[in-house]
Amino acid sequence: MNELLLVVDTATPAGSVALSRGTTLLGEIALNVRKNHTDHLLNIIQQLLKDADLSLGQLDAFGVVLGPGSFTGLRVGVATVKGLALATDRPVVGVSSLATLAMQVPLSVFPVCALLDARKSEVYAGLFDWKNDRLEPMGEETVLPPARLLDSLDQELVFVGDGALAYRELIVARLGGRAHFPPWPLHMPRASSAASLVLDGLRQQKVIPLESLVPAYIRPSEAEVMWASREG
Amino acid sequence: MNELLLVVDTATPAGSVALSRGTTLLGEIALNVRKNHTDHLLNIIQQLLKDADLSLGQLDAFGVVLGPGSFTGLRVGVATVKGLALATDRPVVGVSSLATLAMQVPLSVFPVCALLDARKSEVYAGLFDWKNDRLEPMGEETVLPPARLLDSLDQELVFVGDGALAYRELIVARLGGRAHFPPWPLHMPRASSAASLVLDGLRQQKVIPLESLVPAYIRPSEAEVMWASREG
Repeated sequence: MNELLLVVDTATPAGSVALSRGTTLLGEIALNVRKNHTDHLLNIIQQLLKDADLSLGQLDAFGVVLGPGSFTGLRVGVATVKGLALATDRPVVGVSSLATLAMQVPLSVFPVCALLDARKSEVYAGLFDWKNDRLEPMGEETVLPPARLLDSLDQELVFVGDGALAYRELIVARLGGRAHFPPWPLHMPRASSAASLVLDGLRQQKVIPLESLVPAYIRPSEAEVMWASREG
Repeated sequence: MNELLLVVDTATPAGSVALSRGTTLLGEIALNVRKNHTDHLLNIIQQLLKDADLSLGQLDAFGVVLGPGSFTGLRVGVATVKGLALATDRPVVGVSSLATLAMQVPLSVFPVCALLDARKSEVYAGLFDWKNDRLEPMGEETVLPPARLLDSLDQELVFVGDGALAYRELIVARLGGRAHFPPWPLHMPRASSAASLVLDGLRQQKVIPLESLVPAYIRPSEAEVMWASREG
């Protein structure tokens, strides 16, 4: 099976798009320049397809990072993939931004704590472990203040993600030598890292019907909270 | 220090270019579509700078993967970086393709055996270990037939690189459960992974004078061997 996949990640200000055929990565464009995803996502998708001499119609499926992460970023990413999938009549697989980050610390000696900055002094957090060379989640993904997360952790862990960078001092102050960090280029989620989760999902037929394809926010967006409080 | 770096990798048919500011990755373009690096490298460099709203003149330094790897690819990569560095009067740091691959398995539970396909039924091989959260080489990089490499290995190892994929069956036949492999998107060297080695090198002033900047081939190129045999 040599499924041609296009995978999109917009969970953080660093967006990326990857293209793969079966288990071969064909290319990736990643940009972390705080430009608006709305303006640039379609451009980099087109650029990548052009560089690989491929057209949208040749793709077999799409993958998208559903979240948790930036509300606006995820909406743009999911809406774009939804549009492309509708136009080409191809299936979509959605994956977690935190699992994507954990894929970037493969076969790590300690479990992985993937953290994304959730603003409002909170982090999105997911714990993962490598068992038999496969990534396995340890419990539910959550959103909470970093200090409260650290209260619940005492084992040696590898911290990855922009939340790990934002709260690195706090993490080290609490855990000391039990806190480990991968090299700095690995702290942004990458569509190429999501691609292997997407391919697994596609082969296990974990396809999401387009009408159910929505970002995974974990907590309601600020706009929804404000709306609910005005309504209530 | 917020050094603006452009890093180029052409050690395999999968070329990539990364841009970073200090310890923040600004972007990366990776292409594994077996196009000629000569045609595409300058294009993707220009594309990445444009996407990041930067110009060549703003860069503080260049990084390049010196090898080992594809003779032609490395020549194109090194020549391009040399030209850009000469024109902008900026320093160049060179790093190993095998160390770059090992950076993609950070904090791994077992030592890393980075392998690149050297053609002629040989592999370029480098062994690395993560000590105190830093990558350390275990001995010299070498080129040899994979079976001979495997004769010398009996410990549990993580195999990464296109050589690990090309000889995966042989590796598993010899080492069984002692051989581990990261997820498939991680087997091509990435300029972004080289970037942290380049930044370390720059800060330790391991700059290569342009006249000494040559690819690290490990063995003489086929052309040189043929030339030498004709001469001899």
